[in-house]
Amino acid sequence: MDELVWRANVHDHTVTTEALPESWQRLGGRGLSARILLDEIPATCHPLGPRSKLLFTPGLLVGHMLSSCDRLSVGCKSPLTDGVKESNAGGTTALKLVRLGIKALIIEGAPAGERWWVLHLSKAGGRFEPADDLAGLGVYAAAERLLARYGPKVAVSLIGLAGEMGLSAAGIQNLDKDRSPTRIAGRGGAGAVMGAKRLKAIVVDDTGGEPPPIIDPQLYRDAARRFTQALMAHPQTKTYADYGTAAMVQMCNGFGGLPTRNFSAGQFEDAVAISGETLRDLIIARGGDGDPTHACMPGCTIRCSNVFPDASGRQIVSPLEYETIGLVGSNLGINNLDAIGRINRELDDLGIDSIEIGAALGVAAEAGLMAFGDDERALALIDEIRRGTPLGRILGHGAAITGKVFGVLRVPVVKKQAISAYDPRAIKGTGVTYATSPQGADHTAGLTIRARIDHLKPEGQAALSRTAQVNMAGYDTLGACIFASFGFAAAPGAVRDLLRARYGWDLGEEALQVLGRQTLSLEHQFNRAAGFTRAADRLPEWMTTEPLPPTGAVFDVPEAELDALCEEAR
Amino acid sequence: MDELVWRANVHDHTVTTEALPESWQRLGGRGLSARILLDEIPATCHPLGPRSKLLFTPGLLVGHMLSSCDRLSVGCKSPLTDGVKESNAGGTTALKLVRLGIKALIIEGAPAGERWWVLHLSKAGGRFEPADDLAGLGVYAAAERLLARYGPKVAVSLIGLAGEMGLSAAGIQNLDKDRSPTRIAGRGGAGAVMGAKRLKAIVVDDTGGEPPPIIDPQLYRDAARRFTQALMAHPQTKTYADYGTAAMVQMCNGFGGLPTRNFSAGQFEDAVAISGETLRDLIIARGGDGDPTHACMPGCTIRCSNVFPDASGRQIVSPLEYETIGLVGSNLGINNLDAIGRINRELDDLGIDSIEIGAALGVAAEAGLMAFGDDERALALIDEIRRGTPLGRILGHGAAITGKVFGVLRVPVVKKQAISAYDPRAIKGTGVTYATSPQGADHTAGLTIRARIDHLKPEGQAALSRTAQVNMAGYDTLGACIFASFGFAAAPGAVRDLLRARYGWDLGEEALQVLGRQTLSLEHQFNRAAGFTRAADRLPEWMTTEPLPPTGAVFDVPEAELDALCEEAR
Repeated sequence: MDELVWRANVHDHTVTTEALPESWQRLGGRGLSARILLDEIPATCHPLGPRSKLLFTPGLLVGHMLSSCDRLSVGCKSPLTDGVKESNAGGTTALKLVRLGIKALIIEGAPAGERWWVLHLSKAGGRFEPADDLAGLGVYAAAERLLARYGPKVAVSLIGLAGEMGLSAAGIQNLDKDRSPTRIAGRGGAGAVMGAKRLKAIVVDDTGGEPPPIIDPQLYRDAARRFTQALMAHPQTKTYADYGTAAMVQMCNGFGGLPTRNFSAGQFEDAVAISGETLRDLIIARGGDGDPTHACMPGCTIRCSNVFPDASGRQIVSPLEYETIGLVGSNLGINNLDAIGRINRELDDLGIDSIEIGAALGVAAEAGLMAFGDDERALALIDEIRRGTPLGRILGHGAAITGKVFGVLRVPVVKKQAISAYDPRAIKGTGVTYATSPQGADHTAGLTIRARIDHLKPEGQAALSRTAQVNMAGYDTLGACIFASFGFAAAPGAVRDLLRARYGWDLGEEALQVLGRQTLSLEHQFNRAAGFTRAADRLPEWMTTEPLPPTGAVFDVPEAELDALCEEAR
Repeated sequence: MDELVWRANVHDHTVTTEALPESWQRLGGRGLSARILLDEIPATCHPLGPRSKLLFTPGLLVGHMLSSCDRLSVGCKSPLTDGVKESNAGGTTALKLVRLGIKALIIEGAPAGERWWVLHLSKAGGRFEPADDLAGLGVYAAAERLLARYGPKVAVSLIGLAGEMGLSAAGIQNLDKDRSPTRIAGRGGAGAVMGAKRLKAIVVDDTGGEPPPIIDPQLYRDAARRFTQALMAHPQTKTYADYGTAAMVQMCNGFGGLPTRNFSAGQFEDAVAISGETLRDLIIARGGDGDPTHACMPGCTIRCSNVFPDASGRQIVSPLEYETIGLVGSNLGINNLDAIGRINRELDDLGIDSIEIGAALGVAAEAGLMAFGDDERALALIDEIRRGTPLGRILGHGAAITGKVFGVLRVPVVKKQAISAYDPRAIKGTGVTYATSPQGADHTAGLTIRARIDHLKPEGQAALSRTAQVNMAGYDTLGACIFASFGFAAAPGAVRDLLRARYGWDLGEEALQVLGRQTLSLEHQFNRAAGFTRAADRLPEWMTTEPLPPTGAVFDVPEAELDALCEEAR
């Protein structure tokens, strides 16, 4: 089965297929997304306007249920940052797209009316079906109805009310392997672009599809085994299998980098109460399914996801992740996992980024709209988003707009995207990533917290971030989860061999970095064309002057090092 | 009396004076403002943060009541555009600053607390006085109280609730010669910067002050006479003396460039009802003081200002200007001067830019928040601003934020500043000015409507705008009103001779253009340092594709011409 580009036009409701241009063939995931954006949309176009496009590009390794390597990249010009955007997610969407031979799905055009639609993709091709009955539904209810309509085996990407309203923090939810619609391509507002195209959902039925061909099956099996064994042997894999990503709470708190009360402190006095250890104990005590964690994608051996039940054993939310705990918990002064879980569920159902909204609520608290620690008020503010009130819309557009409208100066954003749960003053390498990533503040663009370095010292952080950014851009191009890096780093040559085996390309010993550098270069090019300069490659001014308790750190990596990093990346 | 820099620190409440650095000596008004911004603030700083500054710089000709040449420049980094900002106003402030020998007033620092202050300037120096009793007052009530406290002869610059709330459309009001507090430095949010400095008002008592020295009185008198005679002889002077700026309604409507219902059309079916002719008839019929127009500054011979009374002869507002009529009238589908006048008065009292709010309300109407033509609803929305509700704050931050929050694509802004009452598709030279001025969309930065050109053709518009921008930047540096150009253009050498006579400098035959080019260059430099690129030198995307009824024009001046203009200006 040939890999093709599928092009869906929301104006005339045609879906066509076309061969891959040569310059797109050796790209996938995040890299292909950036290439298509550069080739097909004016960088200065309105992200929600007729010239913008929404892209679904599975990574290069997607299709064979290699552990943690079936991720989906969603690409667009970001309504949040106005720059390049790739947001990736687990779940089953990418796998099923690839099994239909879809290398890239391009959604384009200006909708002809106000009606809502489902885009249905299968071996028979693509078609638009009316979906007005789904409009206004939350993600959970809409997904349930879609599964009833299209059968339990389809993949679904869908938006909630946040996407329908065009809010800049809206994401796109995907079904996980247990059909929970909570694997969100969350960052940067891709859900708003989907809403602007009047698409409530994309349904992928891969019946009759098949795994993509492998040129050298023996080489593939060998490389896959090396990778998987290395991944399984890594101590962090065990940690995540036990605690999920919430394992990070105590670690980051220990470094003094856990966002607390709108980034006014780096340690939270109640960190233990919201830690991975407490979460695990609660899940076990409340009698989940016996295993405190599970996989989000078929075949993943890390199983960092979880289902968090309430005291009666009923699911509150799945998954509950570190970033959400940091932004919605300590960042709001909320010390109660049940409350954090309830807030998380509401945000998931709205289809909105919990990092961005956690940060926006922190800014709102600073503006006097809620008291830190008041989880009921936080839920009431989130209900404002659901109701689409002016206040709700402000919050739903994220931390930068919230700060602007209410005149708050301490706003934790870069390129208008919220900083996630690693305060950059205490984890400076990640601070460099926030500042210089074309994506805006994004820990997954190059997290450095596990490096053996003094995270408080400015020296060496730019180099560390540069390496991490290149690698992560490579993994995102492969469709590999951030945690797959534990395995690939310990299995030299595995990336090279997997690509050789599957495609017949030999990218050399630095295969991962070749892909990563290419992807970053394309993204920097897009942002430059969109009007970004080095003035945008900065942390917020106040983080360079306001010391972070208890370490007293400020962000002091020299601006010249930030500029040199970006210059090199281009 | 030496010309000095006065520096007021809002943190420790000191006011100091210092000699002029050499590089500031030959500048004034808008040019000096840009120079100080470049020299003293980081271009990337937060406009409302501790590193930002607020500047009051009288123009070079201010001080001798030369007709229309006593204007004040207010400078800052704009909270609206995030770029360079100079907003100028008539009234009496500049004259009195100069008579105290103040070449530039620099307000700086981070306020130490939440209290409000008045900055009082006199021959005895500067001092801060508590003003908490004025906080929350509208501009009219606050000005009245200030005049009662400080006597009827002072000049006052003050903010209303909009500035106190830090809204991006907040301006700074100044007393006119009749002590009406309505000469607003309106554009770009200077009032928000003043509010961020916790200054409710600046009071200037020039008792004991004196006009600035003139080196060659005979030359000065001759040049002044040539200028004044030319100004008086200009037919447009008579038109403005008769009708005020509202004379423009029918002219611009005739060109198909009168903003109508959020810039969806260029002619308004009820243009006559909101025209200068109707306004004049109403003022005369309702028995004003017999003269339908008057001067805003002592000594002005144009007298384009007016007092608009209601049916009982009681003042509704003063002045009622063309820009307000265009943005609050036809742009909102409101065909009634009384309603426009009432809205204008509310906006004046809030201390907020009527152009920006008119545009924001047009966007709000498109979002379904009001029906076009519903003036009562417009007043209710303005009351939301007064009450500081989330909706009011959104509107008070201007058209760009309103469009962003409510997901409206047809937003008439450049560099986030609202386009004023000349649709750039029908008046293309002014469109070039909107696109390329460092100020953002601003008709006073280079209006081309009186040029003998086919305004619908793209050819020649960039050159026309370039000339207009250079000249206007020159006039703004002199402190001359846009209408003084009628006189200066017809009195060759007058600018050169006035500067020679007053300061002893000879800037040559192109004295005006020398100043203008220098000012523009400084402003472009600031914006570049702040992170602006050519991507910001564009009209909104939709104005290049959406034809404007009834002419069917789109904005089609080639982007290369816009870029060449900016490149040359730098």
